[in-house]
Amino acid sequence: MSKPKKLRSRKAGLPPGSLVHIGEIKTVAASFSVMDFDESGLFETQLPAAGSFGDEPRHYKTRWANVYGAHDPADLTVLGSVFGLHPLVQEDILNNAQRQKVDAYDEYLYLVLHRYDLKEGPLELTKDQISLVIGRDYVLSLQERQSKTFEPIRQRLRAEHTSARRGGADMLAYSLIDSVVDSYFGVIEQLNDHAETLETEILGQPNPASLEGIHQFKRTVSQLRRNLQPLREILGTMHRDAGDFFRPELQLYLRDVYDHLVHILESLEDLRDLATSLLEVYLSTVSHRVNLEVRALTVVATIFMPATLIAGIFGMNFQIMPWLANSSGFFYALGLMGMIGIVMLILFWRRKSV
Amino acid sequence: MSKPKKLRSRKAGLPPGSLVHIGEIKTVAASFSVMDFDESGLFETQLPAAGSFGDEPRHYKTRWANVYGAHDPADLTVLGSVFGLHPLVQEDILNNAQRQKVDAYDEYLYLVLHRYDLKEGPLELTKDQISLVIGRDYVLSLQERQSKTFEPIRQRLRAEHTSARRGGADMLAYSLIDSVVDSYFGVIEQLNDHAETLETEILGQPNPASLEGIHQFKRTVSQLRRNLQPLREILGTMHRDAGDFFRPELQLYLRDVYDHLVHILESLEDLRDLATSLLEVYLSTVSHRVNLEVRALTVVATIFMPATLIAGIFGMNFQIMPWLANSSGFFYALGLMGMIGIVMLILFWRRKSV
Amino acid sequence: MSKPKKLRSRKAGLPPGSLVHIGEIKTVAASFSVMDFDESGLFETQLPAAGSFGDEPRHYKTRWANVYGAHDPADLTVLGSVFGLHPLVQEDILNNAQRQKVDAYDEYLYLVLHRYDLKEGPLELTKDQISLVIGRDYVLSLQERQSKTFEPIRQRLRAEHTSARRGGADMLAYSLIDSVVDSYFGVIEQLNDHAETLETEILGQPNPASLEGIHQFKRTVSQLRRNLQPLREILGTMHRDAGDFFRPELQLYLRDVYDHLVHILESLEDLRDLATSLLEVYLSTVSHRVNLEVRALTVVATIFMPATLIAGIFGMNFQIMPWLANSSGFFYALGLMGMIGIVMLILFWRRKSV
Amino acid sequence: MSKPKKLRSRKAGLPPGSLVHIGEIKTVAASFSVMDFDESGLFETQLPAAGSFGDEPRHYKTRWANVYGAHDPADLTVLGSVFGLHPLVQEDILNNAQRQKVDAYDEYLYLVLHRYDLKEGPLELTKDQISLVIGRDYVLSLQERQSKTFEPIRQRLRAEHTSARRGGADMLAYSLIDSVVDSYFGVIEQLNDHAETLETEILGQPNPASLEGIHQFKRTVSQLRRNLQPLREILGTMHRDAGDFFRPELQLYLRDVYDHLVHILESLEDLRDLATSLLEVYLSTVSHRVNLEVRALTVVATIFMPATLIAGIFGMNFQIMPWLANSSGFFYALGLMGMIGIVMLILFWRRKSV
Amino acid sequence: MSKPKKLRSRKAGLPPGSLVHIGEIKTVAASFSVMDFDESGLFETQLPAAGSFGDEPRHYKTRWANVYGAHDPADLTVLGSVFGLHPLVQEDILNNAQRQKVDAYDEYLYLVLHRYDLKEGPLELTKDQISLVIGRDYVLSLQERQSKTFEPIRQRLRAEHTSARRGGADMLAYSLIDSVVDSYFGVIEQLNDHAETLETEILGQPNPASLEGIHQFKRTVSQLRRNLQPLREILGTMHRDAGDFFRPELQLYLRDVYDHLVHILESLEDLRDLATSLLEVYLSTVSHRVNLEVRALTVVATIFMPATLIAGIFGMNFQIMPWLANSSGFFYALGLMGMIGIVMLILFWRRKSV
Repeated sequence: MSKPKKLRSRKAGLPPGSLVHIGEIKTVAASFSVMDFDESGLFETQLPAAGSFGDEPRHYKTRWANVYGAHDPADLTVLGSVFGLHPLVQEDILNNAQRQKVDAYDEYLYLVLHRYDLKEGPLELTKDQISLVIGRDYVLSLQERQSKTFEPIRQRLRAEHTSARRGGADMLAYSLIDSVVDSYFGVIEQLNDHAETLETEILGQPNPASLEGIHQFKRTVSQLRRNLQPLREILGTMHRDAGDFFRPELQLYLRDVYDHLVHILESLEDLRDLATSLLEVYLSTVSHRVNLEVRALTVVATIFMPATLIAGIFGMNFQIMPWLANSSGFFYALGLMGMIGIVMLILFWRRKSV
Repeated sequence: MSKPKKLRSRKAGLPPGSLVHIGEIKTVAASFSVMDFDESGLFETQLPAAGSFGDEPRHYKTRWANVYGAHDPADLTVLGSVFGLHPLVQEDILNNAQRQKVDAYDEYLYLVLHRYDLKEGPLELTKDQISLVIGRDYVLSLQERQSKTFEPIRQRLRAEHTSARRGGADMLAYSLIDSVVDSYFGVIEQLNDHAETLETEILGQPNPASLEGIHQFKRTVSQLRRNLQPLREILGTMHRDAGDFFRPELQLYLRDVYDHLVHILESLEDLRDLATSLLEVYLSTVSHRVNLEVRALTVVATIFMPATLIAGIFGMNFQIMPWLANSSGFFYALGLMGMIGIVMLILFWRRKSV
Repeated sequence: MSKPKKLRSRKAGLPPGSLVHIGEIKTVAASFSVMDFDESGLFETQLPAAGSFGDEPRHYKTRWANVYGAHDPADLTVLGSVFGLHPLVQEDILNNAQRQKVDAYDEYLYLVLHRYDLKEGPLELTKDQISLVIGRDYVLSLQERQSKTFEPIRQRLRAEHTSARRGGADMLAYSLIDSVVDSYFGVIEQLNDHAETLETEILGQPNPASLEGIHQFKRTVSQLRRNLQPLREILGTMHRDAGDFFRPELQLYLRDVYDHLVHILESLEDLRDLATSLLEVYLSTVSHRVNLEVRALTVVATIFMPATLIAGIFGMNFQIMPWLANSSGFFYALGLMGMIGIVMLILFWRRKSV
Repeated sequence: MSKPKKLRSRKAGLPPGSLVHIGEIKTVAASFSVMDFDESGLFETQLPAAGSFGDEPRHYKTRWANVYGAHDPADLTVLGSVFGLHPLVQEDILNNAQRQKVDAYDEYLYLVLHRYDLKEGPLELTKDQISLVIGRDYVLSLQERQSKTFEPIRQRLRAEHTSARRGGADMLAYSLIDSVVDSYFGVIEQLNDHAETLETEILGQPNPASLEGIHQFKRTVSQLRRNLQPLREILGTMHRDAGDFFRPELQLYLRDVYDHLVHILESLEDLRDLATSLLEVYLSTVSHRVNLEVRALTVVATIFMPATLIAGIFGMNFQIMPWLANSSGFFYALGLMGMIGIVMLILFWRRKSV
Repeated sequence: MSKPKKLRSRKAGLPPGSLVHIGEIKTVAASFSVMDFDESGLFETQLPAAGSFGDEPRHYKTRWANVYGAHDPADLTVLGSVFGLHPLVQEDILNNAQRQKVDAYDEYLYLVLHRYDLKEGPLELTKDQISLVIGRDYVLSLQERQSKTFEPIRQRLRAEHTSARRGGADMLAYSLIDSVVDSYFGVIEQLNDHAETLETEILGQPNPASLEGIHQFKRTVSQLRRNLQPLREILGTMHRDAGDFFRPELQLYLRDVYDHLVHILESLEDLRDLATSLLEVYLSTVSHRVNLEVRALTVVATIFMPATLIAGIFGMNFQIMPWLANSSGFFYALGLMGMIGIVMLILFWRRKSV
């Protein structure tokens, strides 16, 4: 996720509102589609180019224009003139390194959302930027690449007599936001599973790899949390900022999305706390192991050092030494070694229980 | 507690307001009961099905409808039409993974509360969701499974001439909220006991199992704290949000519940601090033990290494060596070993006191 | 301090406002006294029972009614009817596990304060609850047990022509609050002394007992801090909440008490930071000691292992070996041992300075 | 960065508004230039001295006066009288140890910005102060030394028919602020690269130098974050504070800069979290290594101590000892040593898996 | 700094407003001086006693009354009646353990400021309390002991035609506050130097004394920060609280002081972060050293243990042993020792690089 930031400085020095694509380009060919609908019917078609949005007549009351992979500044300029987009909006759409945000313009609301994918292996979070332009009777959605996130909404619109069709542009916009936020639950589940694996590992057989695992996990959770934070703000103030574009009846629905997001953020905080706690457990466990190792060494030394000394003593070359001539002297010596070893071990054991 | 979250993604892609049960289903058979009361009398009956709430005539001024285990979307649709519940409320009742919250509708207040149970062994927190729909002359309470939490309130209502009967729907709602919040004191007590056990263990004989114990404890406390936090907000703003549904006289009572909750949250913070402190104590103790182990090893090495060297020296095969021919040479050597050992120990002891 | 909380759950399930004593009962016999005063004179008497407060005529303008050890619900009911106390106030007076708080009623202000005692040995904080009911021309103070905290106020009232006598009920209330807050300075001093002892110990000769000492200290400080926090809020908003019961002239005095409390809280934060810092110092010191121990061991091994090897070499039974027949061979060997030892030590010393 | 602070105390004791240069003087010769422009044309010239700003007639509507290296109080006094600068503004321009801030005066807005440079080797942050005086039809920019940050803006102004020329003083001011903020992205990228290097090092081959590396890194990030924080505030409230000097159309642009800055601050928080996490990883890794070392030592001791004991035993000088006369006795002894070593290793291996 | 707190409890039990000196008494003899000035002239004299302030006629418009070492309650009572000070103000002046604060009275503003001195050796912060009573045409400043902080202001007043003389009481008050805040820069510089010394030491040759050093440093920084915090608040709200006593023109100046203080607080946060980071570095370094020590020990053991075993083997008394009769056997054995030692070292070196 640090890559797009890197490309950001490409823009430093250009006049504001210059259209330069910032961020990785994730699909090559842009694709344009239109879906016009209201309670009376639905019309759906692919368009050959950005300019066709202007040429295609409106068939039903509400229009949903969708664009995949608009990385070409030229396309943006065309879209900008068709939909009347402010130069800054055009710039933000091209710039994939945006934070989530909402900007209220007179004629439309501009919303930047993120969709996240979590890749296991080394845990990595990838981000797709979704731009929504919510007008009074249309929604323009722009995604970095093809994805199935909005497919169920399309299905529902295709079905006749659904509330989706009757809903108009604001209901559609709500559905899109809702489906993005709901997609986060999947990420949370993956993180939960990952956390459980980590927990089992660290409470069982911790090793430096698990350390790296926690590090990656913590980093991912904290990144996701920081990225989702602004969305919370946005949804929390939507009713104020977006009063013009959402009917009052929809406020309750927006609040519901807000509740979901708060729930998600709380789960992320739980996960972060868990990661911190696991790190402490890891550190304590490693210390404990050092302790066990040293103890093992001490036991070994405690048994063998005295015995070796005794062997050394009877290996001295004094002409007059006790036991040497005694036929059981050898076994006396061995017995002495054993005895001292046992005494040392007993002392050792006692000390521990103090 | 992570399980319900997992099932949450089941809903991603469905139209908003779709009734799907989210979370574990905790009881199989739903049960419906009604309690009508006012100062003049009380009527109480079990109902066969969700629809019966509409058929059963109101016998006294205030109605308390209680539902256990409403996990069937069909039941919710029926309840929804009988009590005029908004589709989002129906959805929230089915979805057991809700955070605590209050939503004010025109005709009723919708409140989500949690009841917590703490299971020892590995410390685990289980959560039951309680939904309260507080109308002007009725309260509808929905619980995931049978429980005794509301039994004392039922007893009081059954007794004649109690303030409970005179109180009406808002007094009943307050009693329900109060009994849920008071049930948290039990959880806090359990946690306090657990903490004391942990403390005794860690200040006495810490071991890796106690480490895992603190980890679980900390996690549980922080989960509970995070779950109760929103309730504090809810109760703190109840007087503003719920002005329509609670008479001014009851505000004082609600504030009392709020005070209890704040007290509970403070206890949880105390417990969290305690857990953090215990972890630090554990870590320090393990380090200290490593120190003791190494010292033991050093003492052993300090005594036996010089002695072994002396034995080795007198075991050398030089033809001319002092003491060898001396009849007390052997004992001279032993004496030397002892002396050096004593000197080393004295040096060792001194160094420590520097 | 965790004990009272435990008894709290006794109340779960009882109707709100039920009078049950919660918390430890600290004195057995309740004691009731009355002090009527104004600029013209003072009347002072002990009363036989709670009911006598109603029977005793008012001798001067302002009445100070004091009760020690009111743990009997029956007494509270009587006091409640004499002073017109709300059932929730009666309940709070009996419940010794209250947080500090202020509740404004139409006819009086209800204030819960704590007095703290610090017991050394294992550091322990004990809490006494003081309830103040501040009416327009009377103050009712209820304490868990006899104490000298309010004695100086009594002395001042007994003296003629003091501002205390002229002050009326609000001045009296202020004096009571002030003397409670000032009593915290004593606790802070004790904690300061304790901290200094700990600091000396840990910077000098830390041991596991000092670890336990910091743990207790930190816990106590953090408990006290959490308990005093709400009082800060109370005093900070007193001028708003208590406008009816305190004359504007007294606001300055209340603000002075507020300043003292803020000072106390800041001292507590200093102490908490100190405790955290001491823990870190302890941990570092223990690590450092491990280091010293290991170094000692390494020095011992570095000197004796090579020497022992040389002794072993000359103890081998080869028929042809250098030096053996040499009359100074033995001393050559010893010299070699010494030399190698010195070289090793020099190497060892050098390495450290890298 | 601590150097300028040091020089700060030079000013203690002087009357407020005294013009003394505070901070390092970074260039010797001051340089003055003027750029007058509007949609009709552009005039650009170097000026010989500060006073020439007053002498040079205005050629087009908007004037951009730029000064490099104004460290001479005399120059400031002249500039002050030409542009009508408040004594405090003059003082702040000379004092290079200012925090970023905006002060609104009646006739102009005074803005202090910082440009940062990151030097690798030991990571070090250097700061250049940029003062902007934004009048209604002019902008006066003062920089500590020559730099290319504003060069692109100059280029754009030199081109005919650009929006830059039409924009006027507020558009120019916005461009200047924008180019400073965009220059931070370069610093962030450098920090990101540095962080990646550190991460690779610490997860691979950590050593005390990497510890120092994290320390420097953390310090730099936290300094930068603390320095940029006030700018966020400034930009966040610009629309309120700067209403007089920026046309409403430009508010959107300012908000865009604000968004960039928030993004930068979030990246810095990510980096700080990363640094903290790396430190924990380092500490854990070192502990783990101690563990591995001790284990190696234990293995060595476990194998050789018993073997040495056996050799010692058969080196004893008892007259009657088993195996000595046996022709394979020597190999029996070696076999015994090997066997015991293997048994010890097996015991050792087993213990670890417990 | 903990000493004054200790004496605080002396006051517990006294009537509010009782004049008792709290804190250490730092000078014995009180000294009183007066400086009357306006644009027309200046009159300056020493006064024999507190009462003389009333007797001395006003020579010019603005009076600056300065008192050093007013520790005698009697003096305060006199000053109180001369300047019309509220009993609480008199009490606060005597009580040297005040936090910084501002209290607005009808006729004057009462300000408590601190001046700090840092003593090296063991780092210690000493605090002098400065009380300012700011009336409409006079300023009364009270300091615990003689100091040169205000000397430059006096010099400026003595010079004719300065803005200082024209400024009046509010300008004087501002100058006094400004010079106190500017004096903090000196303390910050000292702390910065100290931090640099500590950093060099800890990144170079850390030892337990540096640990104690960080502990003292951290404590001092955190104390200073906590003590200066309230001043920030005071200066931030001065324009609101002090509107009556400061002309609007001076608000800009006060804001400048506020900016300086914020700068100082940010430096303190930098220093605190630095201290925390240094502690972590110290801890990691000590752990790393343990690692190095253990490695050294392991190397020593790895080389000498096998060699000693071989020597032991050839020292065994078997009658038939290989090499013994061989004339180069001795050197074979030495070669074997060397070879095994080298192999062990190679194994050891390899392992580390894994």
